[in-house]
Amino acid sequence: MLVSKEARNFTVSVLEVSTGSPLLVMNEQDAFEMSLTPHSKVMVKYEGREAYASVTLTKTMVAKGRVLASIELAEKLGLKEGYPVQVKPAGLPGSYASLLKRIRGERLSYNEMYSIIKDVVNGAYDEAEIAAFLLSQQFYVLDEDELTSLIKAMVETGVKISFDEPVFDEHSIGGVPGNSKVAMVAVPIVASFGLLIPKTSSRAITSPAGTADTMEVLARVDLTAEEIRELAKKTRGLLVWGGKLNLAPADDIFVNVERKLSIDPWHQMVASILSKKLAMSVESLVIDIPVGKKAKIEEPVHADQLAGLFIRQAAKLGMRVKVAITFGGQPIGMSVGPALEAKEALEALLNKRGSRSLVDKAILIAGLTMELSGKVPPGQGESYARELFSSGKAYEKFREIIEAQGGKPNIKPEEVPLGKYTYTFKSPLEGAVTYIDNAAVTMVARAAGAPFDKGAGVQFHAKVGYRVNKGDPLFTIYSNSESRLEEAISLASKYSVITVEGMLLKTLP
Amino acid sequence: MLVSKEARNFTVSVLEVSTGSPLLVMNEQDAFEMSLTPHSKVMVKYEGREAYASVTLTKTMVAKGRVLASIELAEKLGLKEGYPVQVKPAGLPGSYASLLKRIRGERLSYNEMYSIIKDVVNGAYDEAEIAAFLLSQQFYVLDEDELTSLIKAMVETGVKISFDEPVFDEHSIGGVPGNSKVAMVAVPIVASFGLLIPKTSSRAITSPAGTADTMEVLARVDLTAEEIRELAKKTRGLLVWGGKLNLAPADDIFVNVERKLSIDPWHQMVASILSKKLAMSVESLVIDIPVGKKAKIEEPVHADQLAGLFIRQAAKLGMRVKVAITFGGQPIGMSVGPALEAKEALEALLNKRGSRSLVDKAILIAGLTMELSGKVPPGQGESYARELFSSGKAYEKFREIIEAQGGKPNIKPEEVPLGKYTYTFKSPLEGAVTYIDNAAVTMVARAAGAPFDKGAGVQFHAKVGYRVNKGDPLFTIYSNSESRLEEAISLASKYSVITVEGMLLKTLP
Repeated sequence: MLVSKEARNFTVSVLEVSTGSPLLVMNEQDAFEMSLTPHSKVMVKYEGREAYASVTLTKTMVAKGRVLASIELAEKLGLKEGYPVQVKPAGLPGSYASLLKRIRGERLSYNEMYSIIKDVVNGAYDEAEIAAFLLSQQFYVLDEDELTSLIKAMVETGVKISFDEPVFDEHSIGGVPGNSKVAMVAVPIVASFGLLIPKTSSRAITSPAGTADTMEVLARVDLTAEEIRELAKKTRGLLVWGGKLNLAPADDIFVNVERKLSIDPWHQMVASILSKKLAMSVESLVIDIPVGKKAKIEEPVHADQLAGLFIRQAAKLGMRVKVAITFGGQPIGMSVGPALEAKEALEALLNKRGSRSLVDKAILIAGLTMELSGKVPPGQGESYARELFSSGKAYEKFREIIEAQGGKPNIKPEEVPLGKYTYTFKSPLEGAVTYIDNAAVTMVARAAGAPFDKGAGVQFHAKVGYRVNKGDPLFTIYSNSESRLEEAISLASKYSVITVEGMLLKTLP
Repeated sequence: MLVSKEARNFTVSVLEVSTGSPLLVMNEQDAFEMSLTPHSKVMVKYEGREAYASVTLTKTMVAKGRVLASIELAEKLGLKEGYPVQVKPAGLPGSYASLLKRIRGERLSYNEMYSIIKDVVNGAYDEAEIAAFLLSQQFYVLDEDELTSLIKAMVETGVKISFDEPVFDEHSIGGVPGNSKVAMVAVPIVASFGLLIPKTSSRAITSPAGTADTMEVLARVDLTAEEIRELAKKTRGLLVWGGKLNLAPADDIFVNVERKLSIDPWHQMVASILSKKLAMSVESLVIDIPVGKKAKIEEPVHADQLAGLFIRQAAKLGMRVKVAITFGGQPIGMSVGPALEAKEALEALLNKRGSRSLVDKAILIAGLTMELSGKVPPGQGESYARELFSSGKAYEKFREIIEAQGGKPNIKPEEVPLGKYTYTFKSPLEGAVTYIDNAAVTMVARAAGAPFDKGAGVQFHAKVGYRVNKGDPLFTIYSNSESRLEEAISLASKYSVITVEGMLLKTLP
């Protein structure tokens, strides 16, 4: 459909609302004259800069000849009260034909892929078109060249942060509760070895805690690119949130729609992780793929296939990658939720011991990262890493990192504030823990308020293989809201979180 | 992902903005406490009524404990200043599992289909999920049972208007410019024969004029259900806009997303037409499928297949249908655009003659409709219809209809206001018109301002087969905006609208 390209001049005011994407409020009469209706896309220009926005109409809130810009739009263009802007109907994005091609199942070249991703990042598309792009990947899986194009395009359409020396990193595909704290232990080990590891991570999307949420309990994580470059020189390691750095920003837009559609195409996951790392100039990367019942990957054979995809793509993109396939059949460590996990990580580093699923895993990941540097003989990474952990060097490094990121370096584990309200489930019988349900744990911790309520979560007193007596505590739910705690308790009762089985299975008459 | 179901109480104010879908502005702090971010969906309740809304955040525009409702939300719930509302995170729609099933290519039962359509109509889904539902039809074509379920569900989730006697109707699948005026001639013929034909039609979406746009030049078309039932008793025929009647409202939501994705699945088109007609209690229907170059259907064999789909579905739904496959290889009649077409229809009825592609087509469609009543012998419809047209009875009926709908019954064709600015293209050589490009005509008429600018459009002076001399006028563009006229002229020059070919093709030395 052809839309007139006529632009008109308006005077802007800023409307102090945040809608998630740029919004422009126009007088109904102006909109009618420009053939615009609610939801129409317009291009707004101010002094050379331009941004797409969605139209909202009003009879009274703004006069003819004036428009209101939402916070997102004002920020994009640097608008203030009284500035003159030009508004014109947006027309079709330049990549539209390529998008339709992909929906029909045709393959895209790098240039076509780039043009789509560029338009996605610029806000040219609504959710409908983004959903179409992602669904086309469900129906016509990206071939490996298309995937490389996608990753490159995602990097090129965002900010790149560069360093003066090689950058190392580790990253988990996630999907197992309690995993957010592994990096809190692994990163200080690697940094104390002297490697540069300015780890960026995300906040939780569907899990009870992302590494960024957990680290935020102890320090600031919203560092700017400049601060990261500056502080990394000193501490070698950092644990920051990638969210506002604009690294591969297409990813955040895709994740939002994937969540709505409950889809998580493998190729898009690989693109998400590798593009964010490339944007941080990471050259050597360890990928952790937890496998197990109710984890993201349930079958070992799928883990191998996914690992292959990571390895081939990394090679094409000039990045060295090692993949660790780890056990993900129950939660990692003894806690789930930002504050509980931060406390557990701190305790492990301070006491030089902790749950094996946390400590051994972190040491393993750190060791592999160190092996990638070539400064540790192959197969020796783990023992080097264990030495750094056991000697207390990793804890010293963690204190440095907390301090650099504006936290209190000598914070004691018992000073970490947990949820005010608690409830403890007890074992109904004598026996052994035979199963902990990852999905149920996640559901209960989120119902209790995690990750928004940092003090909310689940603390385990027993894990698989532990022997328990009748009445022994199994796990405690924490929350800062009584009603959320109640909801979490009711879910925990309904979906059995921990299974305890006695020795006696049944009696016969 | 599990979302807490906690509801909170707020005091509402109405924000005079129209965003196309319900919007709720909340204080950032309240939203944070409820784990809501911009774009989160909430369920808003007021006295038993409830509606979904999208969240927008503000620091200053609304205090804690208060919320602002957009016009759409206020209308849905009947909200006014100071009313108490309950707000809770929306959670997953009940039909979500069925939607995911369809995306995976599994077939849906009637109950599953109904639950999806119900949630679509209630606003439970965003564009992403609607796009997924429509795209799933591209990849896994609806089987005929699913299509019947879809049509029934679309009817059941909207308003039904019933009459005390059998209802007749005619409808074109569209796609050929100039077609909007055919119903203006056909409906009065059928009504003057005594059949009940309260025709509802749509406004233009991608064409330069829908029948509702064209009729609106002469009379009101936004009648209420009550007015339609009342007036139809008197005039037998009506030409109204279906837009605000809430007939099969899912369709409007689907069309909006289909347009964004440039998809128009056949099955969805059949569902759209039949559901709207069933909601108007239509029992006998003539469907017009124009076929030709750059029409919606280009190949005769596809027209036959589509006709089969209409006929089988109508039979399953208890509706009698006749399909007319008509010539759509060039525009219908001599004009394109609301006012130009209204004028042409009025002239034809008043003068009892006009362009054959208009008059013969309208008579044919009217005749087939009359045959469906059983009151005209098979094969005789056309001659009965021609008699009603030629005797002036159809014109008298048209005057009645215009008057009933609040227009000026004795309006003269020359009183219809056309675009102020015009430009006429002339033949560059002596020869014959061999081709008129439907797509180019549509583009030019829309660039000139149609359908929003009712006076905008294209008037033809010659059509395919006409002999022209060098300098003879070929077509005139009308517009109420000089700059739009210029844009239309430049497009008309670039995409040749009319092809004139001379007798001499080339000379040899």
